[in-house]
Amino acid sequence: MTHGPELALPAAYSIAAVRDQVRQWRSDGLRIGFVPTMGALHEGHLALVKQALGSADRVIVSIFVNPTQFAPGEDFDAYPRTLEQDADKLAETGAHLVYAPDAREMYPEGFVTNVSLTGPSHGMESVSRPHFFNGVATVVCKLLNQVQPDTAVFGEKDYQQLMVIRRMVTDLNLPVEIQGGETVREDDGLALSSRNVYLNATERERAARLNVILQEFADALSGGANVADAQHQAQLKAQSAFDGVDYVVARDAETLDALPSGPIDRNARVLAAVRVGKTRLIDNRAAPKT
Amino acid sequence: MTHGPELALPAAYSIAAVRDQVRQWRSDGLRIGFVPTMGALHEGHLALVKQALGSADRVIVSIFVNPTQFAPGEDFDAYPRTLEQDADKLAETGAHLVYAPDAREMYPEGFVTNVSLTGPSHGMESVSRPHFFNGVATVVCKLLNQVQPDTAVFGEKDYQQLMVIRRMVTDLNLPVEIQGGETVREDDGLALSSRNVYLNATERERAARLNVILQEFADALSGGANVADAQHQAQLKAQSAFDGVDYVVARDAETLDALPSGPIDRNARVLAAVRVGKTRLIDNRAAPKT
Repeated sequence: MTHGPELALPAAYSIAAVRDQVRQWRSDGLRIGFVPTMGALHEGHLALVKQALGSADRVIVSIFVNPTQFAPGEDFDAYPRTLEQDADKLAETGAHLVYAPDAREMYPEGFVTNVSLTGPSHGMESVSRPHFFNGVATVVCKLLNQVQPDTAVFGEKDYQQLMVIRRMVTDLNLPVEIQGGETVREDDGLALSSRNVYLNATERERAARLNVILQEFADALSGGANVADAQHQAQLKAQSAFDGVDYVVARDAETLDALPSGPIDRNARVLAAVRVGKTRLIDNRAAPKT
Repeated sequence: MTHGPELALPAAYSIAAVRDQVRQWRSDGLRIGFVPTMGALHEGHLALVKQALGSADRVIVSIFVNPTQFAPGEDFDAYPRTLEQDADKLAETGAHLVYAPDAREMYPEGFVTNVSLTGPSHGMESVSRPHFFNGVATVVCKLLNQVQPDTAVFGEKDYQQLMVIRRMVTDLNLPVEIQGGETVREDDGLALSSRNVYLNATERERAARLNVILQEFADALSGGANVADAQHQAQLKAQSAFDGVDYVVARDAETLDALPSGPIDRNARVLAAVRVGKTRLIDNRAAPKT
């Protein structure tokens, strides 16, 4: 089944190979968990793997840097690719299989299908990255159909993405349970991200402000503040803390719809994307209605 | 499992109900065939059911008049709905389950996902019905995920649709085999269609010319005629025979790409859509390279 480098856990490099393994496990009555990633694994990913291990007998982790969700000029080529180290971490965490599909099998000649959503994919990430969620929805639909897991775990770190995937899975009736996994943070609150490696020491220190600003924003909303006022305050803080602010917003926690004015009347989520130096960071926090 | 009218075969009206039945059959080691339809069943549909019965142990036929593939002003409201008679025919043919999902479960509030294709969905039907194949691809993706059959049969009568579905299933890695079923024809060659009931006696007689024109067109191509010349001849014949001609074209039999000039260098398909009175008829024929 393997034809790549020697890895610390079994690997599948083709759709047929991963399906063979899944078929065998399923015929043994085992429940299959799945964690799709783009590799460059850190403790945030490994927490998703642990969560999957808690609700499945066998866990598959895919590593695929999906070209269709990068725009020209984004960091597709520079995106860290570290399969052997990733496999070491996965083996230690207890994952059972790494699935590293080939881009030529993922997008063969003649590929013309696109899965797109309105609703939760509107705004925020889509403003600066207009094709991002089409790329995500399409590749996740494909990966779920390739692996056919019983359950799949996606990080809340990419909260809008999680809501887009939940909606796509519901709308297309994909037979899989989608779990959100809590964001893992550094001691100073910075959300773990594969892109944090791009930060120099000063930037790394400044980056921790993002989580603080979002937590204050969320606390204000849960405490009954007016949505527009709290959002304006958070935006001002972000503008003075960072080198660029793509968005700092509060949204309906499920639909990601804009919220009515006044205090929140439902569970909300605060979400932000900012630039520190040349690095774009995103984060989000729950703002439950209390 | 039933909560509709008394039918001549078992019925499922919800995703959960059809999945329960499929799960049971699959745990008994049975292979599941699926024939999606919009009802108003005729011998053409029943031939697809027979084909499915030939390659599966249990056959499910869905009946769902999909609102998203009709444009405003098309015949969605007038489209014939004959569930009880359909069930009689299905029972007689040997189908095992009719699946008649509810539009509110198919498209619940908040539904926002769209499966779209370029490639084979371009041109022909899309010219007069721009959203048609988005509606088809999305609902077929949903139905296949709801039922999770091993094999599914679609009629060659809707040849462009068949190619769109094949491409969508390949591109999204849906774990199902797609079979094309040969078109069933009246004695005079008219392809069976649920819309033939709209034709009056004179129109019915004239409608048979469509198949003749297409067969002559296909024979000319297989015989080595120049594509552009043969197509022009066929278009002239169609214009003099019918009340309107949407298209009469030759295409690559698989990709539906336009063909290079000169004699065909690959298997081709000739396809047409015409109007007889107020009724729109489509048909197609293979033009194999000989």
